[in-house]
Parts: sequence; C-alpha cells; structure tokens
Amino acid sequence: MIYLDNSSSTFQKPFCVKHSIKKTLNKYAANPGRSGHKLSLLAGEKVLEARMTLANHFGLKDFTNVIFTASCTEALNLALQGSVQPHGHIIATIYEHNSVLRTLEYLKKTYHITYTLVTPNANGIITPDRILSAKQPNTYLVVVNHTSNVTGHTQPIHEIGAVCHEHNLLFLVDTAQSGGHERLNMEKDHISMLAVAGHKGFHSIQCGALLIQDCKIKPLKYGGTGTNSISLTQPTDYPEGLESGTDSIVNIIALATGVKFVERKWNDIHQKITNLTQYTLTHLSKIPNCIVYSTNANSGVISFCIKGYTSTEIASYLNQKHIAVRSGLHCAPKIHEYLGTTKNGLVRVSLSYFTHKTDLMYLIHCLKTLSKKTLLFQKN
Amino acid sequence: MIYLDNSSSTFQKPFCVKHSIKKTLNKYAANPGRSGHKLSLLAGEKVLEARMTLANHFGLKDFTNVIFTASCTEALNLALQGSVQPHGHIIATIYEHNSVLRTLEYLKKTYHITYTLVTPNANGIITPDRILSAKQPNTYLVVVNHTSNVTGHTQPIHEIGAVCHEHNLLFLVDTAQSGGHERLNMEKDHISMLAVAGHKGFHSIQCGALLIQDCKIKPLKYGGTGTNSISLTQPTDYPEGLESGTDSIVNIIALATGVKFVERKWNDIHQKITNLTQYTLTHLSKIPNCIVYSTNANSGVISFCIKGYTSTEIASYLNQKHIAVRSGLHCAPKIHEYLGTTKNGLVRVSLSYFTHKTDLMYLIHCLKTLSKKTLLFQKN
Repeated sequence: MIYLDNSSSTFQKPFCVKHSIKKTLNKYAANPGRSGHKLSLLAGEKVLEARMTLANHFGLKDFTNVIFTASCTEALNLALQGSVQPHGHIIATIYEHNSVLRTLEYLKKTYHITYTLVTPNANGIITPDRILSAKQPNTYLVVVNHTSNVTGHTQPIHEIGAVCHEHNLLFLVDTAQSGGHERLNMEKDHISMLAVAGHKGFHSIQCGALLIQDCKIKPLKYGGTGTNSISLTQPTDYPEGLESGTDSIVNIIALATGVKFVERKWNDIHQKITNLTQYTLTHLSKIPNCIVYSTNANSGVISFCIKGYTSTEIASYLNQKHIAVRSGLHCAPKIHEYLGTTKNGLVRVSLSYFTHKTDLMYLIHCLKTLSKKTLLFQKN
Repeated sequence: MIYLDNSSSTFQKPFCVKHSIKKTLNKYAANPGRSGHKLSLLAGEKVLEARMTLANHFGLKDFTNVIFTASCTEALNLALQGSVQPHGHIIATIYEHNSVLRTLEYLKKTYHITYTLVTPNANGIITPDRILSAKQPNTYLVVVNHTSNVTGHTQPIHEIGAVCHEHNLLFLVDTAQSGGHERLNMEKDHISMLAVAGHKGFHSIQCGALLIQDCKIKPLKYGGTGTNSISLTQPTDYPEGLESGTDSIVNIIALATGVKFVERKWNDIHQKITNLTQYTLTHLSKIPNCIVYSTNANSGVISFCIKGYTSTEIASYLNQKHIAVRSGLHCAPKIHEYLGTTKNGLVRVSLSYFTHKTDLMYLIHCLKTLSKKTLLFQKN
C-alpha cells in the first residue's frame, strides 16, 4: 500500500522511535513519579528529559509547564476548558478542527461564552488585523490552527502573537498539523498555550502535550499526582496538577524521541516535503478537471477534487489502486463551508519524510486515468 | 532490582504484549476509524477486536459500550463527571483512590453534590447493608473500589450490585487493582460503569477503559470522532461520542493482548499470586514489630509497617538492598486515616505473575535484618 494519509497518522515510524518503545518496555516501564525506588526514579528522569526536549523544541523556558496528554485533542480540551471565562468571548478561525469547534460549542452551552470564527484573506491567511477586528470587550482568548489539516495553509503565528500580547489576550496555537514541519518559539511568538500531536509530523505514536506559558488553567481530570496524597484537593502545581493518573511513559518517551528525530533531520525533512509537495501540486494542476486547494509546499498537505466525482469516490478508486488517502471533511467543517466543498468533500494527499517520489508519480498516473474516464463519460 | 511494586505498574510485560506493540507499529499504525482506505480499516478492525475482548472479559453484552481512555483515572473521571447529577448524593468508600476522592471534591464544589464515604466491617469488608445505610433520597450513584491498592481487601461487588439494582442506583466499580486478579460480570453483577487499568494486573502499558451498561453519560473531551464531521455538536453515540481524538492504537491493542494473556493464564496467575502472597503474609507475621494490614491472598497486595520506622525509611532501606516497593499513602488517604497509618504510611509489597519466590525470600531476609536493628536500638 502506498500510504499518503500522513496527516491522519504517519504510518512509517523511524527506527529510533520504535527502538525507544522497545527500550522503554524493557528498562523504564515502572511508574514514573510515584514510588521512591531506583526504577521509578529512572522512569521519572526519562519523563523529565522528555519535558525538556519538548520545552526546548518549542522555545518554552520552564519545562515543568510541559503537560503530557493522551492526544492533541485532549491538549486542546485542557486549554479551552481549563482557561474558560464564563460569559467571555473567544476568537478562533474557520480553519479550526472539531477538537476546537466542538469544545467551543460545549463552552457556549455550559459557560455561556460566545465565539467568532475569523475568515482568511484571498491568500488563505489569517492576518493579525482580521483577528483584531473580531475583538470584543470580553474577548480573553485567541485560538489559531497553525497549519490547516485541510488546505495546508500556515498562519503567521509570530504576528498574531504580537497582537495578542499587545492586547493582553491569551493565545492558544494548535500545532497538530504543523508539528515537525514549522518552527515556533513560545516566548518570542507570545504563545500562551501550544497543543502538540505525537503521531503526525513527529513520527511517533499517539501522545499529546500542552505547553503553557504565563497562565494558570484548571485540570480536565482529577486524581493521583504522586504529590500531597493526603489532600483531597487537586494540587495546582504544574505539571502534576494537570496530569492526574500514571504518565504513559512508553508514549511520552516515544514522542520525545520523535521530536529529537525531527530536529536532527530538520533540513532534510523540510527539503524533501517541499520538493515532493511542489511536484504533486504542479502535476495535479495539469490534470483536467482537477481543482487544487493547497499552495503551501512546506506543509505536505495537498487537497483537491476532480469534477464529476465526490471525494469519497476518488479515495475509493485510489484505495483499489493501493493508494491510501483521506476524503470527506477531515473533521474541519467550517473551512469546507468557506470553500464550498462541504457536499463532496476534498481528497487529501498528505506526505511524510518517508514518502517516495515514485509513490506520487503513481498517484498522478492513477488520477490522470480517472480524470480521462470523466472526460470520456462527459463526451458520451 | 527485585521489583515488588506491581500495584503501581507491572514492570515485566509478557512477550505477547511486547510483540503486539511491535506488530502494531509495523502493521496497524494508521488512524483507526478515520479514513476509508485498507490500512485505516484494518486499524479500525483491530480496535473493534480489542473492544470485544474487553466486553467479553467483563461480561458486557454491547462491545460498542467499551470506551477507551488514556488511563483508569480518566475512566473514573469520565464516569463521575459524565454522570453527575447536580445537588445529588454519591456513596463511595474509604478505600477510594484520589482519582475518585479528588473528583468527588471537584463535583462537590462545582455541581454541589454531597458524598458519604462508607467504612468497612471488622474484616475490612464493605457490606451491602453499610452501603444502604448511607442512602439518601437524592443518592444516584454508588462507587466502590473493587480491591484496595493499600490493603488488598476485595469487596463483594455482586452483592452490592444487587442492592444498587434494587434501589435503582448507578453502580461504578474501580477495577484498577483487581483487574487480572478477580472476575466480574457486568450483567450479572449489575455494574453500570466499570473502570479498567491496563498497566497493572493486565500486564500491559498505560491504557484505560470505561465499560458502560444501560446508562448515558456526557463526554470529558470534545472533538473529532470520524462521524458526522459537519456537525459542531458532539455525537452522542457510543463509543465515538466519548472517544474524541485519534484512538491510541498501540496502547489499545496492547491492553487487549494483556487481557487475553490473563485469560489464558488465569488459573496459573491465581495460584501463583495466592501462594506467594500467603508465603509473604505468613513470614511477615513472624517478624518482630511488623504489623501486617493485608489478609487477601488473591490480591497480591501486602501492606505492613515495622515499629520504629516510617514506611519511607523501610522502602529506602529496601531500595538500597535492590528491592523496589512503595511507601507512603498510595494516593488513598482515607483508608490510612481509618487505619491510623497516615503519619508513617505503609510499605506496600505488590506481586505479579512474574514474581519469584526467591524474591520474597530475600525480602523477608532483609526485613528480618532491619527489624533486628530496631530491637538492638531499643535495647540500647
């Protein structure tokens, strides 16, 4: 199978990630941060190192503010639910994933918040002035999807962060799709909260993280933290106050290993993804009846449709040709509404460092054949 | 290191669990339940099989009511937060872990619930009549820790379930410590919700599950479910409505593999744990100044103290002798308050199927030596 669904989950994991999992299972599988014996302390040290790796990667000074979660979805829920200000106002964008949109709807019903979804300019960009024009007196938080999982557009986080900082607004960035592709620095970019996904651009397994800077939020889960066990009140210290339950050491070490892999290979990944995306964009644009919705060669996300077919029909055809892509709405309905692609959805081809050019040559060949069938059908 | 801290996390994982992780990484690491291609469908099938394994193991008829979570703590939070009835009353026990106690405190502050913690009889047992005597007109839920992570006492779930059923009360069982040691059948035992931990008695890695029978609860997290993406309202169907975000396929398959391992080895595990626990209890009781708080040989949990030492001092001494145990309050403060062991805590020795008798012989030898030191110290 040719796997071009890396924005859902990267399928091929680097050797170092697989090896780290094996090593963790054999050496560090004790409960980190609970008991005082050597194996528990060793496990605790490994989790601490993972916090430092993530903090360094995202320019966060205090590594105790790296909160490990089950997923990026949980990180976004923790950020949104944990920082909620009843009757407040949130600015988000039409690019947001349902992990943000559905949580906003929950907050609207339960905490009576309101929210505004900002639209992009003609180039697909959410500019700082568009954010500002949505500001209301009770706005307390801005949420931005760094790179769209539908179109691959990447937003100017540094510029938006500056505006948030100036207007004293919390700034939450969803890096699910940009992680491993784009650099961010929480301090310089004035990011209050940054949500991470492990199983996409960081080539690891399911694990998330929420990195927090200069703000205090409430937990999503309550329970054992290994600290102050006698108190029935949840500790408020980071990270333990937000990380109830045993840390998932296999997933955490794998995530940190994936981040280190990406750091080592940064230039190679960037160059390969850019070249392959550019190749795909160029050749897709030559296919008759094919409309391409992506322009950002660094994202590895390429969405398109072919007139006469629904996205599911195209994905199903490609599946028969042993090519894995994703069709439909990609859990991000508002950008499809904006693009007018809700009815048929879009086909998304998404690349990773392990994608081969020949994979894409074969994809283009198959799509050309499919497109010709449409033309033939239309002629008849 | 001799590892006797299996109630925190079982350290040694069976070959089948490790192998399942390797296989998942190589074959099933696509996104289950999102895309329509073969690899995603295959991953989805494996998650479905895991649901069936857990449903079968716990006597739950509808496997779509198996909700995978990051941990048992998350499962308990999902159950307690998801079923909350504002101004209602909950009955729990003094054996509860902070994952229950701290969540109850949160519900008390936020939803104005009240709760009663039931104490056991002289044998350490929470009898159904003790539960009933705590019932109030607004009681809607009973929470029981199946096997205590402090003393190893196992509660009569079948009898308590019958009473809950008769009085139309929801019944939540925390099997964190009993999983892999005790059998339950949700249907016959009238259990509404059952929380599972993967990394303890099931010999797997961090992964939890909440099994639900005949009740509807609210989600803890909102987001992508792979279904009805166009709707900003969280779907209410099980399991997807409660499982936002990509399922952690590595952890889920590992948990199901652990459950199958336990099923295959059930009699061996039972016999080995019982023999080893009995051996340890017998020999501990012969050590001067040693007070043992455990009686249940099937739990593999043995807690004790030695007069003249805090539990941390004993655990630290054992750590120097390369024996890993846990000291302190084990995130369950109320049972320590009841036992009068809050100040010094207890030392907990906890066994697994992979514990050797020689490990325990060496433990007893070390504790005898330590105890003699106390006697010597007292004589001087």
